[in-house]
Amino acid sequence: MDTLTRLEATIAQRLTAAPEESYVAKLHAKGLPKIAQKLGEEATEAVIAALAGDEAELVGEAADLLFHLLVLLGAKGVALEQVLAELDRREGVSGLAEKAARSE
Amino acid sequence: MDTLTRLEATIAQRLTAAPEESYVAKLHAKGLPKIAQKLGEEATEAVIAALAGDEAELVGEAADLLFHLLVLLGAKGVALEQVLAELDRREGVSGLAEKAARSE
Amino acid sequence: MDTLTRLEATIAQRLTAAPEESYVAKLHAKGLPKIAQKLGEEATEAVIAALAGDEAELVGEAADLLFHLLVLLGAKGVALEQVLAELDRREGVSGLAEKAARSE
Amino acid sequence: MDTLTRLEATIAQRLTAAPEESYVAKLHAKGLPKIAQKLGEEATEAVIAALAGDEAELVGEAADLLFHLLVLLGAKGVALEQVLAELDRREGVSGLAEKAARSE
Repeated sequence: MDTLTRLEATIAQRLTAAPEESYVAKLHAKGLPKIAQKLGEEATEAVIAALAGDEAELVGEAADLLFHLLVLLGAKGVALEQVLAELDRREGVSGLAEKAARSE
Repeated sequence: MDTLTRLEATIAQRLTAAPEESYVAKLHAKGLPKIAQKLGEEATEAVIAALAGDEAELVGEAADLLFHLLVLLGAKGVALEQVLAELDRREGVSGLAEKAARSE
Repeated sequence: MDTLTRLEATIAQRLTAAPEESYVAKLHAKGLPKIAQKLGEEATEAVIAALAGDEAELVGEAADLLFHLLVLLGAKGVALEQVLAELDRREGVSGLAEKAARSE
Repeated sequence: MDTLTRLEATIAQRLTAAPEESYVAKLHAKGLPKIAQKLGEEATEAVIAALAGDEAELVGEAADLLFHLLVLLGAKGVALEQVLAELDRREGVSGLAEKAARSE
């Protein structure tokens, strides 16, 4: 199983853990606005790492961003698979558009 | 190949396309601050979709966020693989921590 | 009347204008999530201007941020005065704390 | 003196205080990326308070946002007055545009 799928499963398990034993459970117990806020904060940190940090910082902040995106999706009952399917769908559309553009 | 790895390769190809033919090339031509700004905007939209939108909106905004994260990583020469390796590393550490906590 | 108070009054007037005649009315017609989204976007742009832009860009983005904060407050029926009173209150508390610290 | 001008002066004084005595000095000592990051975080919190919080939360988050905007401007050597002058300038332009539109 790939990293994000496995992480999604881990997060789903931890949602039901005791808040004092799991960061995910603690965040989940604070409610959706707090989870959403963390996503916003991690994105800001990724922006700043990209503009003013080194490679290790960007890697770390991108990892934080992906992690909290999975927590948010999990809290809303949205599967990563749905998001990946949307990306596949768009790439199909966009690939066709590019093919059409090239054949003009 | 999985969706994100394939998307990363597609984005890498488009970075060198003509800006008028590719959204990625156009964004890349505007420079790193603009790419970072798009990531921040997409995160804000994902936050809002989670709090005030429906499932389809959240799926769409999460897809936008992943897409622009890959564009930002590509522009900085960071591979998705590095970010996934960091997530694996943390999960290893966290798994060990949980194991230790349980055996206390 | 100072700039922000006058701007707040102008925004309040425009909220009821025809969307095709006023940016504020158009934004308001799109609903609170869109207004909130604009605030998030302007903050990201201010962050980026501070880290990667020149002084004129930061001035412009800070102006955009203040403008959209006033639109958001107006849409929620919160007066700028309430926010300024909160800042006064905090500065009073913090001033007392500093005075206490100095007299220790 | 109005609240924001006085707060700007207070922040300017505290920039040179000892980091252990002043929140502003501590934040300033961490560098511009950290100050910018705080602005981004406070904006996200204001967005969330507007969408999912009560009035007191929005007032508090708007106050935090204004405070950290002043810290960021101060750290970059930009005066609040420059930002207010830009807002005045835009309102003049926009007022003229509305007048022109009405007289058409």
